[in-house]
Amino acid sequence: MERSDRQLDQILSASSTASDRLLEAMRYSVFNGGKRFRPVLAYAACQAITGRVESADASAAAVELVHAYSLVHDDLPAMDDDDLRRGQPTCHIKFDEATAILAGDALQTSAFSALLSHPTPEHLPQLLSELTAASGAMGMVAGQMIDLSAVGHALDVNALENMHQHKTGALIRASVRMGAIAGGATAFQLNALTTYAEALGLAFQVQDDILDVEGDISTLGKQTGADAALDKPTYPALLGLGQAKTKARELIDKGLSALDSFGPEADLLRELARYVIQRNH
Amino acid sequence: MERSDRQLDQILSASSTASDRLLEAMRYSVFNGGKRFRPVLAYAACQAITGRVESADASAAAVELVHAYSLVHDDLPAMDDDDLRRGQPTCHIKFDEATAILAGDALQTSAFSALLSHPTPEHLPQLLSELTAASGAMGMVAGQMIDLSAVGHALDVNALENMHQHKTGALIRASVRMGAIAGGATAFQLNALTTYAEALGLAFQVQDDILDVEGDISTLGKQTGADAALDKPTYPALLGLGQAKTKARELIDKGLSALDSFGPEADLLRELARYVIQRNH
Repeated sequence: MERSDRQLDQILSASSTASDRLLEAMRYSVFNGGKRFRPVLAYAACQAITGRVESADASAAAVELVHAYSLVHDDLPAMDDDDLRRGQPTCHIKFDEATAILAGDALQTSAFSALLSHPTPEHLPQLLSELTAASGAMGMVAGQMIDLSAVGHALDVNALENMHQHKTGALIRASVRMGAIAGGATAFQLNALTTYAEALGLAFQVQDDILDVEGDISTLGKQTGADAALDKPTYPALLGLGQAKTKARELIDKGLSALDSFGPEADLLRELARYVIQRNH
Repeated sequence: MERSDRQLDQILSASSTASDRLLEAMRYSVFNGGKRFRPVLAYAACQAITGRVESADASAAAVELVHAYSLVHDDLPAMDDDDLRRGQPTCHIKFDEATAILAGDALQTSAFSALLSHPTPEHLPQLLSELTAASGAMGMVAGQMIDLSAVGHALDVNALENMHQHKTGALIRASVRMGAIAGGATAFQLNALTTYAEALGLAFQVQDDILDVEGDISTLGKQTGADAALDKPTYPALLGLGQAKTKARELIDKGLSALDSFGPEADLLRELARYVIQRNH
């Protein structure tokens, strides 16, 4: 999304770093053809409550920078050991492992500095609280830890869901909530949007698992069957492919119902929900 | 320092994480016999301007958590590849590499969430700004990147100083400034304390290099001569041991002079400056 790209470009240009190589690795990892799903969610949530689009800029950039850092670290040899990300060499392949560790670290810091550009300082504590809760030991990082520990272990559907709620769900939830908070959402609105976000986040992950079974390397830009090869638990493996698809559809229906009290200003959120199960990459 | 330990314990206990292993690795890395130099600096700076000690709690915890995360990542095989830290196995040796990467990531997040406990929200933007500037691509991480790139290369004293100003100086400076800001420092006070902190930070690093040459493994808790073995540039290597010692003393004198306008309430800062060149580990 162009607005989000512009914001990210501005933030990463403003980083007058003493190490060009570091900044290069950071930019490489942020501008790699990502879909900007999380920024779009933040903007869409802000729009759903008729907030001004500028209100969501800082939050949109912050969640994308957390997402970008997590991908750089997840791809490392000691973690998922991925050589390709969206058809391009991963950061540690393009640069080296030490640079990738540091670029990830600095991207995380830049996520928090992005919040400083939020125009209404009275929202800063709440935005910071949402972002730290979603991305640290209570959220995303815990999810990645559970995921790594799960390789080669039997996991039931509840345990799988718990893992995903942390690993990807928490940041998707924070993207929606931060966009809404930044735009001045009421408690009622925030509550409805949170239900939407939680359903969407889980559906996103179920669909990811489905794509890993069904997808085509040319559209995914990464190896398919990777989860099975790593003996990672997936929804299709636990539920069967048909049941997994039903689950994804039911979650999207739940997410859409949560938006019933919103008018056409929530249409972008509705589109995004449908996109999640229609996408092929 | 007990007050700082208590704060850190509280923060890390409050992290209701979904991964016990992650939290264990985080606690292991934070409670490893560290000197709490940065928290002590934050408290001492707050005291120097007669601020209330509680004002510095959040800042003290935040800078220590950034420091702790950076050590975990710096010790990784792809970085400095250290097996020992303060006489104990480093995080990736005690746990594993993936856990160490994630524990470091989550510790960085917890540094920013620590700021949320600061009692006066109007200081939050400034504290967040100080911490992000000191620890990310403009500060500490850039310094580590320069350091890694410098191995095996000739570096003159200016380039060495630039590296240290980023790698360790920026966070030491932020520790002092954040403690002072949190306590309600005037611009004049903050300016003087910044001069003190910059001199102290550099002296600390010069002394570190001296200890690497002169130190004893039993008091340092790590291998000595490590820098020379890695062909890392150091002050003693560039200036000679005698000149390096002179430089450290001159920096400390400069730091002490910057405190001339302060009364006995800055005595802890003065003690810390003297400690920096008297310490043997």
